[in-house]
Amino acid sequence: MEAFIAAAEAAAEAAGAVIRPLFRSALLVEAKGDASPVTEADRAAERTIRALLAERFPDHGVIGEEYGAEQADADYVWVIDPIDGTRAFVTGRPLFGSLIGLMHKGRPVLGMIDQPATNERWLGVEGRPLQFRSPMGGTPRIRACASLSEAELSCTSPDMFTASQAPRHARLRKAVRRVTWGGDCYAYGLIALGLVDVIAEGDLKPWDWVALQPVLEAAGGSLTDWQGAPLRLDGPGEVIALGDRGLLPEVIAALA
Amino acid sequence: MEAFIAAAEAAAEAAGAVIRPLFRSALLVEAKGDASPVTEADRAAERTIRALLAERFPDHGVIGEEYGAEQADADYVWVIDPIDGTRAFVTGRPLFGSLIGLMHKGRPVLGMIDQPATNERWLGVEGRPLQFRSPMGGTPRIRACASLSEAELSCTSPDMFTASQAPRHARLRKAVRRVTWGGDCYAYGLIALGLVDVIAEGDLKPWDWVALQPVLEAAGGSLTDWQGAPLRLDGPGEVIALGDRGLLPEVIAALA
Repeated sequence: MEAFIAAAEAAAEAAGAVIRPLFRSALLVEAKGDASPVTEADRAAERTIRALLAERFPDHGVIGEEYGAEQADADYVWVIDPIDGTRAFVTGRPLFGSLIGLMHKGRPVLGMIDQPATNERWLGVEGRPLQFRSPMGGTPRIRACASLSEAELSCTSPDMFTASQAPRHARLRKAVRRVTWGGDCYAYGLIALGLVDVIAEGDLKPWDWVALQPVLEAAGGSLTDWQGAPLRLDGPGEVIALGDRGLLPEVIAALA
Repeated sequence: MEAFIAAAEAAAEAAGAVIRPLFRSALLVEAKGDASPVTEADRAAERTIRALLAERFPDHGVIGEEYGAEQADADYVWVIDPIDGTRAFVTGRPLFGSLIGLMHKGRPVLGMIDQPATNERWLGVEGRPLQFRSPMGGTPRIRACASLSEAELSCTSPDMFTASQAPRHARLRKAVRRVTWGGDCYAYGLIALGLVDVIAEGDLKPWDWVALQPVLEAAGGSLTDWQGAPLRLDGPGEVIALGDRGLLPEVIAALA
Protein backbone atom coordinates (compact mmCIF):
# COMPACT_ATOMS: atom_id res chain seq x y z
CA MET A 1 0.00 0.00 0.00
CA GLU A 2 2.90 2.39 0.71
CA ALA A 3 3.96 2.23 -2.95
CA PHE A 4 0.39 3.03 -3.99
CA ILE A 5 0.26 6.01 -1.63
CA ALA A 6 3.57 7.31 -2.97
CA ALA A 7 2.24 6.96 -6.53
CA ALA A 8 -0.97 8.83 -5.66
CA GLU A 9 1.11 11.62 -4.15
CA ALA A 10 3.34 11.76 -7.23
CA ALA A 11 0.24 11.83 -9.45
CA ALA A 12 -1.23 14.71 -7.45
CA GLU A 13 2.04 16.63 -7.70
CA ALA A 14 2.13 16.06 -11.46
CA ALA A 15 -1.44 17.31 -11.82
CA GLY A 16 -0.76 20.33 -9.60
CA ALA A 17 2.26 21.32 -11.67
CA VAL A 18 0.04 21.52 -14.77
CA ILE A 19 -2.94 23.12 -13.03
CA ARG A 20 -1.41 25.83 -10.81
CA PRO A 21 0.03 28.04 -13.60
CA LEU A 22 -3.33 28.01 -15.40
CA PHE A 23 -5.53 28.90 -12.40
CA ARG A 24 -6.72 32.53 -12.74
CA SER A 25 -4.29 32.99 -15.65
CA ALA A 26 -4.69 35.49 -18.49
CA LEU A 27 -5.47 32.52 -20.73
CA LEU A 28 -8.58 31.71 -18.67
CA VAL A 29 -9.64 35.36 -18.41
CA GLU A 30 -9.46 35.62 -22.19
CA ALA A 31 -11.26 32.31 -22.69
CA LYS A 32 -14.36 33.90 -21.06
CA GLY A 33 -15.83 30.77 -19.56
CA ASP A 34 -14.78 28.51 -22.43
CA ALA A 35 -13.37 25.43 -20.74
CA SER A 36 -11.16 24.32 -23.63
CA PRO A 37 -7.87 25.57 -22.11
CA VAL A 38 -8.83 23.61 -18.98
CA THR A 39 -9.60 20.52 -21.03
CA GLU A 40 -6.14 20.84 -22.59
CA ALA A 41 -4.57 21.06 -19.12
CA ASP A 42 -6.72 18.17 -17.91
CA ARG A 43 -5.50 16.04 -20.82
CA ALA A 44 -1.86 16.98 -20.33
CA ALA A 45 -2.09 16.12 -16.62
CA GLU A 46 -3.88 12.83 -17.33
CA ARG A 47 -1.21 11.80 -19.85
CA THR A 48 1.52 12.54 -17.29
CA ILE A 49 -0.27 10.56 -14.57
CA ARG A 50 -0.91 7.59 -16.89
CA ALA A 51 2.77 7.47 -17.87
CA LEU A 52 3.77 7.60 -14.19
CA LEU A 53 1.40 4.78 -13.22
CA ALA A 54 2.29 2.62 -16.23
CA GLU A 55 5.96 2.83 -15.30
CA ARG A 56 5.43 1.96 -11.63
CA PHE A 57 2.63 -0.59 -12.04
CA PRO A 58 2.59 -2.06 -15.56
CA ASP A 59 -0.02 -4.64 -14.50
CA HIS A 60 -2.51 -2.06 -13.19
CA GLY A 61 -5.44 -0.67 -15.14
CA VAL A 62 -6.37 3.00 -15.50
CA ILE A 63 -9.71 4.75 -16.07
CA GLY A 64 -9.72 8.51 -16.70
CA GLU A 65 -12.11 11.11 -18.01
CA GLU A 66 -10.08 12.15 -21.03
CA TYR A 67 -8.47 8.90 -22.24
CA GLY A 68 -10.95 6.21 -21.20
CA ALA A 69 -10.13 2.76 -19.84
CA GLU A 70 -6.98 0.66 -20.18
CA GLN A 71 -6.67 -2.84 -18.64
CA ALA A 72 -9.89 -2.15 -16.71
CA ASP A 73 -10.13 -5.89 -15.85
CA ALA A 74 -6.84 -5.83 -13.89
CA ASP A 75 -6.93 -6.54 -10.11
CA TYR A 76 -5.81 -2.99 -9.41
CA VAL A 77 -7.37 -0.13 -11.40
CA TRP A 78 -6.61 3.57 -10.94
CA VAL A 79 -9.47 5.99 -11.55
CA ILE A 80 -8.39 9.60 -12.06
CA ASP A 81 -9.59 13.10 -12.85
CA PRO A 82 -6.88 15.78 -12.71
CA ILE A 83 -9.43 18.67 -12.68
CA ASP A 84 -12.76 17.86 -11.04
CA GLY A 85 -14.94 20.98 -10.89
CA THR A 86 -14.19 22.59 -14.24
CA ARG A 87 -16.67 25.44 -13.68
CA ALA A 88 -15.17 26.31 -10.32
CA PHE A 89 -11.74 26.26 -11.94
CA VAL A 90 -12.79 28.42 -14.88
CA THR A 91 -14.37 31.05 -12.58
CA GLY A 92 -11.39 31.21 -10.22
CA ARG A 93 -12.95 29.47 -7.21
CA PRO A 94 -10.47 27.32 -5.27
CA LEU A 95 -13.05 24.52 -4.83
CA PHE A 96 -12.04 22.23 -7.71
CA GLY A 97 -9.67 19.33 -7.04
CA SER A 98 -7.53 16.55 -8.47
CA LEU A 99 -9.09 13.14 -7.79
CA ILE A 100 -6.96 10.00 -7.65
CA GLY A 101 -8.56 6.71 -6.67
CA LEU A 102 -7.45 3.08 -6.65
CA MET A 103 -9.77 0.07 -6.84
CA HIS A 104 -8.81 -3.49 -5.87
CA LYS A 105 -11.06 -6.12 -7.46
CA GLY A 106 -13.76 -3.52 -7.88
CA ARG A 107 -13.57 -2.03 -4.36
CA PRO A 108 -12.14 1.48 -3.83
CA VAL A 109 -9.23 1.07 -1.40
CA LEU A 110 -7.39 4.40 -1.74
CA GLY A 111 -8.66 7.88 -2.52
CA MET A 112 -7.08 11.30 -2.68
CA ILE A 113 -8.62 14.76 -3.09
CA ASP A 114 -5.83 17.23 -3.78
CA GLN A 115 -6.46 20.98 -3.93
CA PRO A 116 -3.49 22.54 -5.72
CA ALA A 117 -4.57 26.20 -5.25
CA THR A 118 -5.11 26.13 -1.47
CA ASN A 119 -2.55 23.38 -0.82
CA GLU A 120 -5.03 21.03 0.87
CA ARG A 121 -5.02 17.25 0.60
CA TRP A 122 -7.32 14.48 1.81
CA LEU A 123 -5.94 10.89 1.73
CA GLY A 124 -8.18 7.95 2.58
CA VAL A 125 -6.79 4.41 2.73
CA GLU A 126 -8.87 1.36 3.59
CA GLY A 127 -8.49 0.43 7.27
CA ARG A 128 -6.68 3.63 8.24
CA PRO A 129 -7.87 6.96 9.65
CA LEU A 130 -8.20 9.81 7.15
CA GLN A 131 -5.16 12.00 6.61
CA PHE A 132 -5.81 15.69 5.92
CA ARG A 133 -3.50 18.65 5.56
CA SER A 134 -4.51 22.27 5.05
CA PRO A 135 -3.11 25.71 5.87
CA MET A 136 -6.71 26.59 6.88
CA GLY A 137 -7.20 23.87 9.49
CA GLY A 138 -9.87 21.21 9.83
CA THR A 139 -10.18 17.85 11.64
CA PRO A 140 -10.43 14.69 9.49
CA ARG A 141 -13.46 13.09 11.13
CA ILE A 142 -17.19 13.17 10.37
CA ARG A 143 -19.64 14.52 12.96
CA ALA A 144 -22.69 12.84 14.46
CA CYS A 145 -26.07 13.96 13.06
CA ALA A 146 -29.15 12.33 14.56
CA SER A 147 -31.74 13.46 12.01
CA LEU A 148 -32.07 14.97 8.56
CA SER A 149 -33.85 17.92 10.15
CA GLU A 150 -30.48 18.84 11.72
CA ALA A 151 -28.42 18.15 8.60
CA GLU A 152 -26.41 20.57 6.48
CA LEU A 153 -26.81 19.57 2.81
CA SER A 154 -24.47 20.66 0.04
CA CYS A 155 -25.13 20.56 -3.69
CA THR A 156 -23.01 21.71 -6.62
CA SER A 157 -25.90 23.05 -8.73
CA PRO A 158 -29.72 22.89 -8.85
CA ASP A 159 -29.41 22.31 -12.61
CA MET A 160 -27.54 19.01 -12.39
CA PHE A 161 -30.56 16.69 -12.04
CA THR A 162 -32.64 14.84 -14.62
CA ALA A 163 -36.40 15.37 -14.80
CA SER A 164 -36.85 12.21 -12.71
CA GLN A 165 -34.20 13.13 -10.14
CA ALA A 166 -35.12 16.82 -9.67
CA PRO A 167 -38.34 16.42 -7.62
CA ARG A 168 -36.76 13.70 -5.48
CA HIS A 169 -33.76 15.90 -4.70
CA ALA A 170 -36.09 18.83 -4.00
CA ARG A 171 -37.86 16.64 -1.40
CA LEU A 172 -34.50 15.91 0.23
CA ARG A 173 -33.69 19.64 0.31
CA LYS A 174 -36.99 20.31 2.08
CA ALA A 175 -36.16 17.68 4.72
CA VAL A 176 -32.78 19.11 5.75
CA ARG A 177 -31.98 22.02 7.99
CA ARG A 178 -30.12 24.02 5.40
CA VAL A 179 -28.65 23.89 1.88
CA THR A 180 -25.40 25.41 0.65
CA TRP A 181 -24.63 25.57 -3.08
CA GLY A 182 -21.46 24.98 -5.06
CA GLY A 183 -18.50 22.91 -4.15
CA ASP A 184 -17.89 19.88 -6.43
CA CYS A 185 -15.47 17.39 -4.83
CA TYR A 186 -14.51 19.94 -2.19
CA ALA A 187 -17.92 19.62 -0.53
CA TYR A 188 -17.38 15.85 -0.13
CA GLY A 189 -14.11 16.73 1.58
CA LEU A 190 -16.07 19.01 3.94
CA ILE A 191 -18.26 16.03 4.97
CA ALA A 192 -15.02 14.28 5.91
CA LEU A 193 -14.16 17.30 8.12
CA GLY A 194 -17.51 17.19 9.96
CA LEU A 195 -18.73 20.47 8.42
CA VAL A 196 -21.36 19.13 5.99
CA ASP A 197 -23.66 16.16 6.68
CA VAL A 198 -25.15 15.01 3.39
CA ILE A 199 -24.75 15.30 -0.39
CA ALA A 200 -26.91 13.55 -2.98
CA GLU A 201 -25.98 14.05 -6.61
CA GLY A 202 -26.74 12.34 -9.89
CA ASP A 203 -24.77 11.47 -13.00
CA LEU A 204 -21.36 11.19 -11.34
CA LYS A 205 -18.83 9.33 -13.45
CA PRO A 206 -16.41 6.79 -11.91
CA TRP A 207 -13.60 9.40 -12.02
CA ASP A 208 -15.89 11.73 -10.03
CA TRP A 209 -16.66 9.29 -7.18
CA VAL A 210 -14.09 6.46 -6.85
CA ALA A 211 -11.53 8.68 -5.06
CA LEU A 212 -14.21 10.13 -2.76
CA GLN A 213 -15.34 6.83 -1.27
CA PRO A 214 -12.11 5.92 0.63
CA VAL A 215 -11.88 9.55 1.86
CA LEU A 216 -15.41 9.43 3.28
CA GLU A 217 -15.04 5.91 4.71
CA ALA A 218 -11.71 6.73 6.37
CA ALA A 219 -13.42 9.68 8.10
CA GLY A 220 -16.29 7.49 9.34
CA GLY A 221 -18.77 8.31 6.57
CA SER A 222 -20.10 6.49 3.53
CA LEU A 223 -20.74 6.73 -0.20
CA THR A 224 -23.54 4.64 -1.71
CA ASP A 225 -26.10 4.85 -4.49
CA TRP A 226 -29.60 6.32 -4.03
CA GLN A 227 -30.83 2.93 -2.76
CA GLY A 228 -28.01 2.64 -0.23
CA ALA A 229 -26.18 -0.06 -2.22
CA PRO A 230 -22.46 0.01 -3.13
CA LEU A 231 -21.66 2.10 -6.21
CA ARG A 232 -20.76 0.29 -9.41
CA LEU A 233 -18.56 1.50 -12.27
CA ASP A 234 -21.43 0.79 -14.69
CA GLY A 235 -24.14 2.33 -12.47
CA PRO A 236 -26.08 5.55 -13.12
CA GLY A 237 -23.79 7.63 -10.89
CA GLU A 238 -26.46 8.56 -8.35
CA VAL A 239 -24.57 9.00 -5.08
CA ILE A 240 -25.43 9.60 -1.44
CA ALA A 241 -22.49 10.86 0.61
CA LEU A 242 -22.95 10.87 4.36
CA GLY A 243 -21.03 11.83 7.44
CA ASP A 244 -23.27 10.08 9.97
CA ARG A 245 -24.28 6.83 8.24
CA GLY A 246 -27.32 6.61 10.51
CA LEU A 247 -28.99 9.16 8.21
CA LEU A 248 -29.10 6.68 5.31
CA PRO A 249 -32.69 5.37 5.76
CA GLU A 250 -34.06 8.94 5.96
CA VAL A 251 -32.12 10.03 2.85
CA ILE A 252 -33.18 6.95 0.86
CA ALA A 253 -36.81 7.60 1.81
CA ALA A 254 -36.62 11.25 0.73
CA LEU A 255 -35.07 10.30 -2.63
CA ALA A 256 -37.42 7.36 -3.31
CA MET B 1 -7.31 58.81 2.15
CA GLU B 2 -4.13 57.08 3.39
CA ALA B 3 -5.40 57.23 6.98
CA PHE B 4 -8.68 55.67 5.83
CA ILE B 5 -6.84 52.87 4.02
CA ALA B 6 -4.71 52.20 7.10
CA ALA B 7 -7.87 52.04 9.23
CA ALA B 8 -9.54 49.61 6.81
CA GLU B 9 -6.46 47.40 6.93
CA ALA B 10 -6.43 47.52 10.74
CA ALA B 11 -10.13 46.68 10.80
CA ALA B 12 -9.57 43.69 8.50
CA GLU B 13 -6.73 42.46 10.69
CA ALA B 14 -8.93 42.79 13.79
CA ALA B 15 -11.72 40.84 12.12
CA GLY B 16 -9.29 38.17 10.89
CA ALA B 17 -7.87 37.68 14.39
CA VAL B 18 -11.36 36.84 15.66
CA ILE B 19 -12.41 34.78 12.64
CA ARG B 20 -9.38 32.60 11.87
CA PRO B 21 -9.38 30.56 15.12
CA LEU B 22 -13.09 29.78 14.67
CA PHE B 23 -12.93 28.65 11.00
CA ARG B 24 -13.36 24.84 10.84
CA SER B 25 -12.97 24.69 14.64
CA ALA B 26 -14.40 21.97 16.90
CA LEU B 27 -16.91 24.58 18.09
CA LEU B 28 -18.37 24.88 14.58
CA VAL B 29 -18.32 21.11 14.00
CA GLU B 30 -20.30 20.65 17.22
CA ALA B 31 -22.68 23.48 16.38
CA LYS B 32 -23.92 21.40 13.38
CA GLY B 33 -24.86 24.26 11.11
CA ASP B 34 -26.13 26.50 13.91
CA ALA B 35 -24.65 29.90 13.13
CA SER B 36 -24.77 31.25 16.67
CA PRO B 37 -21.04 30.79 17.38
CA VAL B 38 -20.41 32.72 14.16
CA THR B 39 -22.81 35.44 15.22
CA GLU B 40 -20.89 35.72 18.47
CA ALA B 41 -17.61 36.07 16.55
CA ASP B 42 -19.22 38.53 14.13
CA ARG B 43 -20.34 40.68 17.09
CA ALA B 44 -16.98 40.53 18.82
CA ALA B 45 -15.22 41.56 15.60
CA GLU B 46 -17.71 44.36 14.93
CA ARG B 47 -17.24 45.74 18.46
CA THR B 48 -13.46 45.73 17.97
CA ILE B 49 -13.73 47.49 14.59
CA ARG B 50 -16.16 50.09 15.93
CA ALA B 51 -13.82 50.89 18.83
CA LEU B 52 -10.89 51.20 16.41
CA LEU B 53 -12.79 53.54 14.07
CA ALA B 54 -14.25 55.65 16.91
CA GLU B 55 -10.76 56.24 18.25
CA ARG B 56 -9.26 57.21 14.89
CA PHE B 57 -12.23 59.12 13.47
CA PRO B 58 -14.57 60.30 16.22
CA ASP B 59 -16.56 62.38 13.69
CA HIS B 60 -17.26 59.44 11.38
CA GLY B 61 -20.44 57.38 11.39
CA VAL B 62 -20.65 53.57 11.38
CA ILE B 63 -23.27 51.15 10.06
CA GLY B 64 -22.87 47.46 10.81
CA GLU B 65 -24.98 44.32 10.68
CA GLU B 66 -24.89 43.54 14.39
CA TYR B 67 -24.96 46.94 16.10
CA GLY B 68 -26.88 49.14 13.67
CA ALA B 69 -26.16 52.77 12.77
CA GLU B 70 -24.26 55.44 14.73
CA GLN B 71 -23.86 59.01 13.42
CA ALA B 72 -25.17 57.82 10.05
CA ASP B 73 -25.63 61.47 8.99
CA ALA B 74 -21.88 62.21 9.22
CA ASP B 75 -19.94 63.13 6.03
CA TYR B 76 -17.93 59.91 6.34
CA VAL B 77 -19.73 56.70 7.24
CA TRP B 78 -18.11 53.26 7.55
CA VAL B 79 -20.24 50.28 6.57
CA ILE B 80 -18.94 46.94 7.85
CA ASP B 81 -19.64 43.23 8.03
CA PRO B 82 -16.87 41.17 9.65
CA ILE B 83 -18.29 37.84 8.36
CA ASP B 84 -20.17 38.06 5.06
CA GLY B 85 -21.18 34.58 3.88
CA THR B 86 -22.17 32.95 7.16
CA ARG B 87 -23.26 29.70 5.47
CA ALA B 88 -19.96 29.37 3.64
CA PHE B 89 -18.15 30.01 6.92
CA VAL B 90 -20.24 27.49 8.86
CA THR B 91 -19.65 24.76 6.26
CA GLY B 92 -15.89 25.36 6.03
CA ARG B 93 -15.77 26.92 2.57
CA PRO B 94 -13.12 29.65 2.25
CA LEU B 95 -15.50 31.90 0.26
CA PHE B 96 -16.80 34.15 3.04
CA GLY B 97 -15.12 37.51 3.65
CA SER B 98 -14.81 40.56 5.86
CA LEU B 99 -16.35 43.62 4.18
CA ILE B 100 -15.22 47.12 5.07
CA GLY B 101 -16.59 50.09 3.15
CA LEU B 102 -16.43 53.86 3.53
CA MET B 103 -18.99 56.31 2.16
CA HIS B 104 -18.41 60.04 1.70
CA LYS B 105 -21.61 62.06 1.55
CA GLY B 106 -23.52 58.95 0.51
CA ARG B 107 -21.04 57.76 -2.15
CA PRO B 108 -18.88 54.65 -1.55
CA VAL B 109 -15.25 55.78 -1.92
CA LEU B 110 -13.31 52.89 -0.37
CA GLY B 111 -14.05 49.20 -0.22
CA MET B 112 -12.20 46.15 1.02
CA ILE B 113 -12.95 42.44 0.71
CA ASP B 114 -10.64 40.55 3.02
CA GLN B 115 -10.45 36.76 3.02
CA PRO B 116 -8.81 35.71 6.30
CA ALA B 117 -8.66 31.95 5.54
CA THR B 118 -6.93 32.15 2.14
CA ASN B 119 -5.08 35.39 2.88
CA GLU B 120 -6.57 37.29 -0.07
CA ARG B 121 -7.48 40.98 -0.08
CA TRP B 122 -9.19 43.29 -2.57
CA LEU B 123 -8.86 47.07 -1.95
CA GLY B 124 -10.75 49.53 -4.12
CA VAL B 125 -10.29 53.30 -3.68
CA GLU B 126 -12.07 55.90 -5.77
CA GLY B 127 -9.84 57.12 -8.61
CA ARG B 128 -7.19 54.44 -8.18
CA PRO B 129 -6.66 51.03 -9.79
CA LEU B 130 -7.78 48.02 -7.74
CA GLN B 131 -5.22 46.45 -5.44
CA PHE B 132 -5.38 42.69 -5.00
CA ARG B 133 -3.16 40.24 -3.20
CA SER B 134 -3.52 36.46 -3.12
CA PRO B 135 -1.23 33.46 -2.77
CA MET B 136 -3.34 31.92 -5.58
CA GLY B 137 -2.80 34.64 -8.19
CA GLY B 138 -5.27 36.72 -10.16
CA THR B 139 -5.18 40.04 -12.03
CA PRO B 140 -7.24 42.95 -10.61
CA ARG B 141 -9.03 43.98 -13.79
CA ILE B 142 -12.41 43.10 -15.29
CA ARG B 143 -12.61 41.48 -18.73
CA ALA B 144 -14.52 42.59 -21.80
CA CYS B 145 -17.76 40.72 -22.51
CA ALA B 146 -19.69 41.78 -25.60
CA SER B 147 -22.98 40.00 -24.93
CA LEU B 148 -24.92 38.22 -22.19
CA SER B 149 -24.81 35.09 -24.32
CA GLU B 150 -21.04 34.98 -23.63
CA ALA B 151 -21.33 35.86 -19.95
CA GLU B 152 -20.47 33.76 -16.92
CA LEU B 153 -23.07 34.43 -14.20
CA SER B 154 -22.57 33.66 -10.53
CA CYS B 155 -25.25 33.40 -7.85
CA THR B 156 -25.01 32.50 -4.17
CA SER B 157 -28.25 30.49 -4.01
CA PRO B 158 -31.38 29.84 -6.10
CA ASP B 159 -33.41 30.23 -2.89
CA MET B 160 -32.46 33.86 -2.21
CA PHE B 161 -35.13 35.53 -4.38
CA THR B 162 -38.63 36.74 -3.58
CA ALA B 163 -41.63 35.46 -5.56
CA SER B 164 -41.42 38.59 -7.72
CA GLN B 165 -37.65 38.39 -8.25
CA ALA B 166 -37.38 34.64 -8.91
CA PRO B 167 -38.84 34.50 -12.46
CA ARG B 168 -36.91 37.62 -13.47
CA HIS B 169 -33.64 36.12 -12.26
CA ALA B 170 -34.51 32.83 -13.97
CA ARG B 171 -34.86 34.80 -17.24
CA LEU B 172 -31.41 36.29 -16.71
CA ARG B 173 -29.95 32.80 -16.07
CA LYS B 174 -31.44 31.60 -19.35
CA ALA B 175 -29.80 34.51 -21.22
CA VAL B 176 -26.24 33.87 -20.04
CA ARG B 177 -23.74 31.32 -21.22
CA ARG B 178 -23.33 29.58 -17.90
CA VAL B 179 -24.20 29.77 -14.20
CA THR B 180 -22.01 28.88 -11.24
CA TRP B 181 -23.49 28.63 -7.74
CA GLY B 182 -22.22 29.74 -4.34
CA GLY B 183 -19.75 32.42 -3.52
CA ASP B 184 -21.20 35.35 -1.52
CA CYS B 185 -18.87 38.38 -1.60
CA TYR B 186 -16.07 36.24 -3.05
CA ALA B 187 -17.92 35.97 -6.38
CA TYR B 188 -18.02 39.79 -6.65
CA GLY B 189 -14.26 39.71 -6.11
CA LEU B 190 -14.02 37.24 -9.02
CA ILE B 191 -15.77 39.76 -11.29
CA ALA B 192 -13.00 42.18 -10.33
CA LEU B 193 -10.46 39.55 -11.45
CA GLY B 194 -12.08 39.11 -14.86
CA LEU B 195 -13.27 35.55 -14.10
CA VAL B 196 -17.02 36.17 -13.70
CA ASP B 197 -19.06 38.65 -15.78
CA VAL B 198 -22.36 39.25 -14.01
CA ILE B 199 -24.12 38.81 -10.68
CA ALA B 200 -27.68 39.91 -9.91
CA GLU B 201 -28.91 39.37 -6.38
CA GLY B 202 -31.75 40.68 -4.23
CA ASP B 203 -32.14 41.73 -0.62
CA LEU B 204 -28.53 42.80 -0.05
CA LYS B 205 -28.10 45.01 3.01
CA PRO B 206 -25.81 48.07 2.97
CA TRP B 207 -23.11 46.10 4.82
CA ASP B 208 -23.32 43.48 2.03
CA TRP B 209 -22.80 45.88 -0.88
CA VAL B 210 -21.15 49.18 0.13
CA ALA B 211 -17.65 47.67 0.26
CA LEU B 212 -18.17 45.86 -3.04
CA GLN B 213 -18.87 48.97 -5.13
CA PRO B 214 -15.40 50.61 -4.91
CA VAL B 215 -13.79 47.19 -5.54
CA LEU B 216 -15.80 46.68 -8.72
CA GLU B 217 -15.41 50.27 -9.90
CA ALA B 218 -11.65 50.27 -9.31
CA ALA B 219 -11.42 47.14 -11.51
CA GLY B 220 -13.43 48.77 -14.30
CA GLY B 221 -16.82 47.31 -13.41
CA SER B 222 -19.99 48.62 -11.80
CA LEU B 223 -22.58 48.01 -9.09
CA THR B 224 -26.09 49.38 -9.60
CA ASP B 225 -29.67 48.49 -8.77
CA TRP B 226 -31.89 46.35 -11.06
CA GLN B 227 -32.84 49.51 -13.01
CA GLY B 228 -29.20 50.54 -13.50
CA ALA B 229 -29.43 53.42 -10.98
CA PRO B 230 -26.98 54.03 -8.12
CA LEU B 231 -27.68 51.96 -5.01
CA ARG B 232 -29.16 53.71 -1.99
CA LEU B 233 -28.81 52.78 1.68
CA ASP B 234 -32.61 52.74 1.97
CA GLY B 235 -33.18 50.83 -1.30
CA PRO B 236 -34.45 47.25 -1.65
CA GLY B 237 -30.93 45.83 -2.02
CA GLU B 238 -31.40 44.53 -5.56
CA VAL B 239 -27.95 44.70 -7.14
CA ILE B 240 -26.43 44.17 -10.57
CA ALA B 241 -22.67 43.67 -10.50
CA LEU B 242 -20.89 43.82 -13.83
CA GLY B 243 -17.42 43.47 -15.18
CA ASP B 244 -18.09 44.89 -18.65
CA ARG B 245 -20.55 47.75 -18.03
CA GLY B 246 -21.71 47.48 -21.62
CA LEU B 247 -23.83 44.50 -20.53
CA LEU B 248 -26.07 46.72 -18.38
CA PRO B 249 -28.94 47.29 -20.87
CA GLU B 250 -29.19 43.56 -21.59
CA VAL B 251 -29.21 42.68 -17.88
CA ILE B 252 -31.82 45.34 -17.05
CA ALA B 253 -34.02 44.04 -19.87
CA ALA B 254 -33.74 40.43 -18.65
CA LEU B 255 -34.63 41.46 -15.07
CA ALA B 256 -37.48 43.81 -16.04
